[in-house]
Amino acid sequence: MRKPPHNPHDLGRHDLDDILGTIDEEVRQRFGEGKVADYIPSLADVPRDRFGIALALPDGAVHEAGHSRERFSIQSVSKVYTLTLALEAIGEELWKRVDREPSGDPFNSLVQLEYEKGIPRNPFMNAGALISADVILSNFEDAEATLLAFMRARSGNPDVGTDEVVARSERESGYRNVAVANFIRSFGNMDNDVQDVLDFYYLQCSLRMDCVDLARSVRYLADAGHCASSDVQVTTAEGATRINSLMMTAGTYDAAGDFAFYVGLPAKSGVGGGIVAVVPHVMGLSVWSPGLDEKGNSLLGRYALHRFTRMTGLSVF
Amino acid sequence: MRKPPHNPHDLGRHDLDDILGTIDEEVRQRFGEGKVADYIPSLADVPRDRFGIALALPDGAVHEAGHSRERFSIQSVSKVYTLTLALEAIGEELWKRVDREPSGDPFNSLVQLEYEKGIPRNPFMNAGALISADVILSNFEDAEATLLAFMRARSGNPDVGTDEVVARSERESGYRNVAVANFIRSFGNMDNDVQDVLDFYYLQCSLRMDCVDLARSVRYLADAGHCASSDVQVTTAEGATRINSLMMTAGTYDAAGDFAFYVGLPAKSGVGGGIVAVVPHVMGLSVWSPGLDEKGNSLLGRYALHRFTRMTGLSVF
Amino acid sequence: MRKPPHNPHDLGRHDLDDILGTIDEEVRQRFGEGKVADYIPSLADVPRDRFGIALALPDGAVHEAGHSRERFSIQSVSKVYTLTLALEAIGEELWKRVDREPSGDPFNSLVQLEYEKGIPRNPFMNAGALISADVILSNFEDAEATLLAFMRARSGNPDVGTDEVVARSERESGYRNVAVANFIRSFGNMDNDVQDVLDFYYLQCSLRMDCVDLARSVRYLADAGHCASSDVQVTTAEGATRINSLMMTAGTYDAAGDFAFYVGLPAKSGVGGGIVAVVPHVMGLSVWSPGLDEKGNSLLGRYALHRFTRMTGLSVF
Amino acid sequence: MRKPPHNPHDLGRHDLDDILGTIDEEVRQRFGEGKVADYIPSLADVPRDRFGIALALPDGAVHEAGHSRERFSIQSVSKVYTLTLALEAIGEELWKRVDREPSGDPFNSLVQLEYEKGIPRNPFMNAGALISADVILSNFEDAEATLLAFMRARSGNPDVGTDEVVARSERESGYRNVAVANFIRSFGNMDNDVQDVLDFYYLQCSLRMDCVDLARSVRYLADAGHCASSDVQVTTAEGATRINSLMMTAGTYDAAGDFAFYVGLPAKSGVGGGIVAVVPHVMGLSVWSPGLDEKGNSLLGRYALHRFTRMTGLSVF
Repeated sequence: MRKPPHNPHDLGRHDLDDILGTIDEEVRQRFGEGKVADYIPSLADVPRDRFGIALALPDGAVHEAGHSRERFSIQSVSKVYTLTLALEAIGEELWKRVDREPSGDPFNSLVQLEYEKGIPRNPFMNAGALISADVILSNFEDAEATLLAFMRARSGNPDVGTDEVVARSERESGYRNVAVANFIRSFGNMDNDVQDVLDFYYLQCSLRMDCVDLARSVRYLADAGHCASSDVQVTTAEGATRINSLMMTAGTYDAAGDFAFYVGLPAKSGVGGGIVAVVPHVMGLSVWSPGLDEKGNSLLGRYALHRFTRMTGLSVF
Repeated sequence: MRKPPHNPHDLGRHDLDDILGTIDEEVRQRFGEGKVADYIPSLADVPRDRFGIALALPDGAVHEAGHSRERFSIQSVSKVYTLTLALEAIGEELWKRVDREPSGDPFNSLVQLEYEKGIPRNPFMNAGALISADVILSNFEDAEATLLAFMRARSGNPDVGTDEVVARSERESGYRNVAVANFIRSFGNMDNDVQDVLDFYYLQCSLRMDCVDLARSVRYLADAGHCASSDVQVTTAEGATRINSLMMTAGTYDAAGDFAFYVGLPAKSGVGGGIVAVVPHVMGLSVWSPGLDEKGNSLLGRYALHRFTRMTGLSVF
Repeated sequence: MRKPPHNPHDLGRHDLDDILGTIDEEVRQRFGEGKVADYIPSLADVPRDRFGIALALPDGAVHEAGHSRERFSIQSVSKVYTLTLALEAIGEELWKRVDREPSGDPFNSLVQLEYEKGIPRNPFMNAGALISADVILSNFEDAEATLLAFMRARSGNPDVGTDEVVARSERESGYRNVAVANFIRSFGNMDNDVQDVLDFYYLQCSLRMDCVDLARSVRYLADAGHCASSDVQVTTAEGATRINSLMMTAGTYDAAGDFAFYVGLPAKSGVGGGIVAVVPHVMGLSVWSPGLDEKGNSLLGRYALHRFTRMTGLSVF
Repeated sequence: MRKPPHNPHDLGRHDLDDILGTIDEEVRQRFGEGKVADYIPSLADVPRDRFGIALALPDGAVHEAGHSRERFSIQSVSKVYTLTLALEAIGEELWKRVDREPSGDPFNSLVQLEYEKGIPRNPFMNAGALISADVILSNFEDAEATLLAFMRARSGNPDVGTDEVVARSERESGYRNVAVANFIRSFGNMDNDVQDVLDFYYLQCSLRMDCVDLARSVRYLADAGHCASSDVQVTTAEGATRINSLMMTAGTYDAAGDFAFYVGLPAKSGVGGGIVAVVPHVMGLSVWSPGLDEKGNSLLGRYALHRFTRMTGLSVF
């Protein structure tokens, strides 16, 4: 069979370094674009002239550029990992409590939740992530320790930790999340104490990691569920396919359709400006730049991923 | 760089024939599953024990199995082609009149259309397809002839035609479509006479083609916009990427999330039981079996595509 | 039992003339306020410096002021009369096809109609009026003649007629109404040809009457269903109560709550600037002034009714 | 001017006793109909064979029948009184924070709240009552004492109190209310601590009163704002009109349209089975029977009010 005109599998390691360097240069020209999340002080204070990019290959190699070793608040990027843990805990049962379709509504909408009786549309809306959190609390003895151990093993970085100031700020300002959690509970789709679920959710959002950590952490989704950092089978090959497909259709808030075109990779973003992306069977990726576009995705991070797939031909489309 | 464990590009032609044959056998065991569309007689009368599959490679080769030469009503599969024509006609201007995001609502919902002032969520909802139809009517002298010529050139089959009985039945029973069209018009997002737009829409839905026709017709989306049947550049490489990404996030009604996992290819389905799918850079595909699942996609067609991507490793995820 | 401090039943006929005269003077000071409906030329061309008011007592007496003998397009005021005819035709069966609750949505919304499967929320939304029209078409040999005879008998004016120019304009611009009608038909809640139903609806909207005609025409709702103009029992006492209560909760678009406070009478408005109101057991009322407020009710008409109930103590609250 | 055929103002006191007695007998035949609220034990345990009715005239007279001296949990009936207090506190400013229109949605819906940015549709939805509660907390030094004093003064009963068991149960099971309150807070439409607002709301719902207490308490709305129990002007005449009109269009959940016809009086119901109603300028009324209809209004209470207005001719329509 004929191969694609520009076969990404022929890319050499030097090519990757060149490409990341070029992207870094391009992005720096645009520093200042986008709007930093300001609903809590810890996020608002992050300088906008930051950009990092890193990619991690299944053989362990890492390529990086820019501020790829500067930590940031991963926020909703964490939903990928808690979904993985929830699937590990209860498998297909999870889909009785959360659906797998794009929502067409903002990430924190309650409308669809009311019409669909407390079943969130997908695990990447806030409502859906609260279901993952609830499942984790029910199925692991120490949910917080479990998550921290998971992130450290996936990234291969024992220093990954959470930011208590961020978690506390989220807790103090998260009226909408409290509303969503109680709304779900009112439909009987939450087993644990609402505050416990929220506290775990704020904790996961407050994880601090850098691009290299995140690229390594998401790599198992590019390697049929196998984590190269820890040599552990984190999920099945089908599990990885499931999560990748969900990231493609629902990972970037209500910009999933445009993101699929513009970037062409399964991806999950967070309001801290971080994004993880997966080139299935090839690599895990992470970018970070704190300025957000109007849909809440990192503006320059999205641009960097666009340039990456266009320069490498690695868009799945 | 490491290649995927099971590299689809190494598949030989014999392998493909074997795989299609196996799928055909598996599907035949399940004949009778699903529910044939019955809103018009011409669709209701189609026997359920039918299944066809075909794939078309950029080099011109075709592989097929089952009832791959039996024609059927392509229905909403046509939306891929009218979108292509509308993009050819007005380019990026199209996106001022129709959005590019998944809807989270049924294909014929009017709710979102009211909240978003007559801008359909994507070109694959009925509302969005009416925008494509309107654009085509405004930009080509003879819209019907243009569409027929397009389909014949893409498929390489000069006998492709429409079914007037189906078109008339659709016209007689399509109250919801009339509602959608007039609703769009009321927001000022339709330039042509409502009935003209609807008539063109019913015509496109009534196109009769077989799996081989459709696999060839969709092949340009697997070859950076180049149509091997006619050696014409139908759209740009970016245009093909755009359409593929839209098919992935919105091509299969409100089952796009599940379809992305289960099949893992950009695809567009129709209530006649046909589906086209694209393996980007590799091949165009078509399956057909008239029994539908509860979301309106061909139940056995969807199963066949699932088996195909699992046996070949060609899921993009 | 104690009587209200200001008993309206003690009002003399001179008092009424004085009150209407005072209101007329007050309103003239405010000519120019409000926005004339401009979606069809025949409405847009009506001068804004017009105001009429009339009231009709069960004993046949009429009091009036201002341009009370100038005809205007009654538009949605007609929904009161077609509801009466539909109730006469099929009685309580009507409530299987249209609900009796306020909608909380604009008069021409399709959202609620989709969620509630084609059952309009009440007979005063456009959707609900189309149900009345459909019932009338099914149950009277000549619907148009029936309606005209009804209006002439109620008003005691054999010259009441329709305005073909208005009806034609409505037909030409009524995309939203066509959408609503086809949407209802798609749910199986319409028996007649959609265009026939719409044509009858446009006809009823194009009725031309003056304030005296309308005050007399609505008087049966103030007299337990008995029409003093024709000495006919138009509906039962319970039927009049039903219609009055519906006007109170749903007669003035999505301003019913404010109207109930500000005016305090069952009322039905039209975009031609006319309003009919009922003082149960006491009188029928009509006001007209073409400038509309932002909810689509006659701004000065609403003010006049407010002044009337405050000066007479006739608000039901 | 002609008077209504059956003038209620001619009703004698004996007539009233006869009518209440007849209604009591009729209702007793139907004991067992309806479904007692069971979301908290204190409500679920109330026996269904209970019915009370009382009416209070501005001159101080009270007529009553059945279990009119048995206390019950007034629940949402309390919203009338907190609205009165909130209006007293900030007047028309209140309408910037809550709208005055019927909602068309269930009493605890969040959908409309999202579309309308945290502005509840009316003060009788749970969301709207939380606004009243928030206003009271901000404007009275001791909100709880203020409310208790208000209810005791209105009813003339110094023993009116709250039920801590009910308040605690509400607090423990009220996930939906917590969701609503936090949702409002997230839009910036709540000044006090969410839990404080909810606690005050649960307290008001837990007020225990009997039919005589409630009929007296609501009497100021039938007497232009004057409270005969305490000889205090509680609100202006316009204030009473405002509240009465709101009760008519929005006081009985999503059954306001039907209630307006069937009963024909401004009324506010609670899930404890109590209802207060007002005959403007004539009397305050209260009925109680714990079995609810499917819309959440007391089934036999509603029937009793229907019989009352039909026997007395006191429906405002």
